[in-house]
Amino acid sequence: MNYPIVIRVLGSLLIFESLGMIPSLLVSLYYGQNDSKAFILSILITGILGLIMYKTPTRIKRIKSREALSIVSVGWVLVSFFGALPLVLSGSVPSWFDAFFEMVSGFTTTGATVIGDVEALPQGILFWRSFSHWIGGMGILVFTVAILPAFGVGSFQIFKAESPGPTADRIVPRIKDTAKILYTVYFIVTIIQIVFLKIGGMSFYDSLVYTFGTVGTGGFATKNASVGAYHSSYVNYIISIFMILSGISFSLYYQMYKGRLREGIKNEELKLYLVIVSASVLLITLNIAKSNYGSLGKAFEHALFQVGSIITTTGYSTADFDQWPTFSKAILFLLMFVGGCAGSTAGGIKNIRILVLLKLIRREMAKIFHPRAIIHVKVNDRVLSGDVLASITSFFALYIIIFVLATIVVSLEGVGLVSASSSVAATLNNVGPGFDFVGPTRNFGEYGNASKMLFSFLMLFGRLELFTMLMLFNPKFWTDEI
Amino acid sequence: MNYPIVIRVLGSLLIFESLGMIPSLLVSLYYGQNDSKAFILSILITGILGLIMYKTPTRIKRIKSREALSIVSVGWVLVSFFGALPLVLSGSVPSWFDAFFEMVSGFTTTGATVIGDVEALPQGILFWRSFSHWIGGMGILVFTVAILPAFGVGSFQIFKAESPGPTADRIVPRIKDTAKILYTVYFIVTIIQIVFLKIGGMSFYDSLVYTFGTVGTGGFATKNASVGAYHSSYVNYIISIFMILSGISFSLYYQMYKGRLREGIKNEELKLYLVIVSASVLLITLNIAKSNYGSLGKAFEHALFQVGSIITTTGYSTADFDQWPTFSKAILFLLMFVGGCAGSTAGGIKNIRILVLLKLIRREMAKIFHPRAIIHVKVNDRVLSGDVLASITSFFALYIIIFVLATIVVSLEGVGLVSASSSVAATLNNVGPGFDFVGPTRNFGEYGNASKMLFSFLMLFGRLELFTMLMLFNPKFWTDEI
Repeated sequence: MNYPIVIRVLGSLLIFESLGMIPSLLVSLYYGQNDSKAFILSILITGILGLIMYKTPTRIKRIKSREALSIVSVGWVLVSFFGALPLVLSGSVPSWFDAFFEMVSGFTTTGATVIGDVEALPQGILFWRSFSHWIGGMGILVFTVAILPAFGVGSFQIFKAESPGPTADRIVPRIKDTAKILYTVYFIVTIIQIVFLKIGGMSFYDSLVYTFGTVGTGGFATKNASVGAYHSSYVNYIISIFMILSGISFSLYYQMYKGRLREGIKNEELKLYLVIVSASVLLITLNIAKSNYGSLGKAFEHALFQVGSIITTTGYSTADFDQWPTFSKAILFLLMFVGGCAGSTAGGIKNIRILVLLKLIRREMAKIFHPRAIIHVKVNDRVLSGDVLASITSFFALYIIIFVLATIVVSLEGVGLVSASSSVAATLNNVGPGFDFVGPTRNFGEYGNASKMLFSFLMLFGRLELFTMLMLFNPKFWTDEI
Repeated sequence: MNYPIVIRVLGSLLIFESLGMIPSLLVSLYYGQNDSKAFILSILITGILGLIMYKTPTRIKRIKSREALSIVSVGWVLVSFFGALPLVLSGSVPSWFDAFFEMVSGFTTTGATVIGDVEALPQGILFWRSFSHWIGGMGILVFTVAILPAFGVGSFQIFKAESPGPTADRIVPRIKDTAKILYTVYFIVTIIQIVFLKIGGMSFYDSLVYTFGTVGTGGFATKNASVGAYHSSYVNYIISIFMILSGISFSLYYQMYKGRLREGIKNEELKLYLVIVSASVLLITLNIAKSNYGSLGKAFEHALFQVGSIITTTGYSTADFDQWPTFSKAILFLLMFVGGCAGSTAGGIKNIRILVLLKLIRREMAKIFHPRAIIHVKVNDRVLSGDVLASITSFFALYIIIFVLATIVVSLEGVGLVSASSSVAATLNNVGPGFDFVGPTRNFGEYGNASKMLFSFLMLFGRLELFTMLMLFNPKFWTDEI
């Protein structure tokens, strides 16, 4: 392991974070609330430490997959840790466990909170919390679309197919190119949504905050009733649409912009995603229309919003969906795991993996009668290699195993099975709210510190595509033995 | 599809079933209850129809995988259907849906019941219900250890490794040889358990019934409180031990008897199974000792029994485990899916598949740093082929998908998420009781007929290793198009 280069890059991450806190400081100064001092102090601490780390002398500058993985994984933890400074220093969230949980939730764009009354917090802190979604979303795009495939790690190698295999000197320029495109698309989508929300009568501040939560598929709100507090169908529909858009691969937008519309329309993952969204909205609308809303229109509005919010793992709510019939709740529970498309800011297993699993099952059935036939699994007319298939199936198995084991551990808290399992699902899939004990009107604050730490790691596990994170717990990883 | 041979073999199955009802008729005559007429009628109807079907003229006698699969799948449904005759004709279970559910539950060795008060039923009917576990258990052994691997279907090809590949003329004799060995072991275990229970003071009738339910890992009882009704630690321990023994591959016993003790001790699946059993018993004992039983001894007795009962998917109970803390319930929920070892009468995913999935995950982690390395997955020092791995991962994915979709459908009944999901888990895994709405003191009787049909098919799905059953819903299967 080339430790100096790792420390150096982590240092630059902290410098960026320190700079990233400046907008929140400005907001805090504008509102003249008591959190300004906390921001100044946090910016200094984070920035100075970052500079010191950045000055680490490095002889070899090459980054291999080992270094890339540790930078990303440790980086996410470190950024969350220092991101928690303003929350603790301002006294908004006095407990370190709570503040760390909250910022991991922010940077992983989960949106699970330990804060019961968000409306009591100063505007600067709320802005920072939501801004972390936006930064996190950007980080995820670069991580999953540029870094992972470039280093040949995990099932996102699917994306690599377009570009030639990784050769050490070409990795960094290609990552930079891809990242630049993604940033641009991300920026444009952000600005469009802010404009739309502002037109709808939202304050500029609120437009920013809810846009950060939407395009980052995070879900932190400035109101206790989340988006429901606005009682505006316009706002509900705008956020619904932008949530669903944010669950689609951002590189697909770029391709479509480049005139390759066919690729967008024929994209199999996108099709599956839209079919699941449509079917879920239809079923839930019918299920809740009579029993909860009395009209199809209102039912559709809430169903669309909640399906969009859950499948993209955003976590905003316009209604207490924990009060919906079990059928609707069961569908939402499933959607938590489905998640968005790969290459978006959404969490979950991702539609591409579900698609491949379904194709593998179909192949298995065909094989019963043609045991000697070699049947390839294709996505978008491209044959997937055995390695990619193995990495997808292993990912799925590991995902389910972590979900089950974490549920068992959380159940030691004495909550019911639905509370325990949905808390784990809501964090592992980076959704935010779950059911019952962590339903949309409640929060993770009542869990003990040990559970909060577990949930923090689950958010990181889910966000960093599991294997990346698990590697860190392997001592051999640090001693170059594997 | 060679329909004549299929009908002919199905006819012979019905003849066997008709003969299989004779012991129950004798029991009914001995107790002089009003169910004797129902048995006589059922024996005649089933036997005569069987004879007619058996007389179907067949020119080609060769059975290929297509025919083998349809015989097994349709056979299980048919046998359950005719097995329901005595229940309906005697008026014990007047509804056809209920009686069909009950007998599917019997023959798939599930043990889920729709009957609230079993103690009100005549002895002959109760005997038949339990005897169906014993017959079903035998059928499963032959199906999974002899038929599936011989025809090269599904993940149980692992077992095929020992014998040369299937050549059409050798299939039937080899199936017969394997089946004979399994029957013998099954018979011996049955007799030993009957003797042990009889020594413990159980009546001969009860000894038979509970042995059928144990060695078949079924779970039908003659008391409403299941095994708990005997209030005997001796009985609890004997049944616990025999349940756990029945979850182990029966061919392993044969190998050990043949002096290949090493193979038994070194068997990786057996090790995993025993580790999971031990760890679960330990954790649950500690969890329920203070809160529910006040002593470690009693807690251990119930924990051992319940872990043995659930992991082997038997479903007997000595306590209302639905009242246990969430931690213990979450472990039991997991055990439902783990199931026993392949080649036993137990249901669930099976330890061998879990073992392979864990090894695949480990390989994936190693691959992050050695992307070009070819790492084989080995079980018991034997390398598994890519086909076997693909079939195991597809099986797992399909299993989870069926579980989730069925839970969503069942939740339309308006029961809670735990009730819906555990009802599906209890039937798909062939366990029997679940939690809440279908906890050990309750039953499936309150579900609607549509749900009962769904549960019946889930029991068959689980029992017949999914793909086999799914094929039947593919019209192309019947028209030779695949």
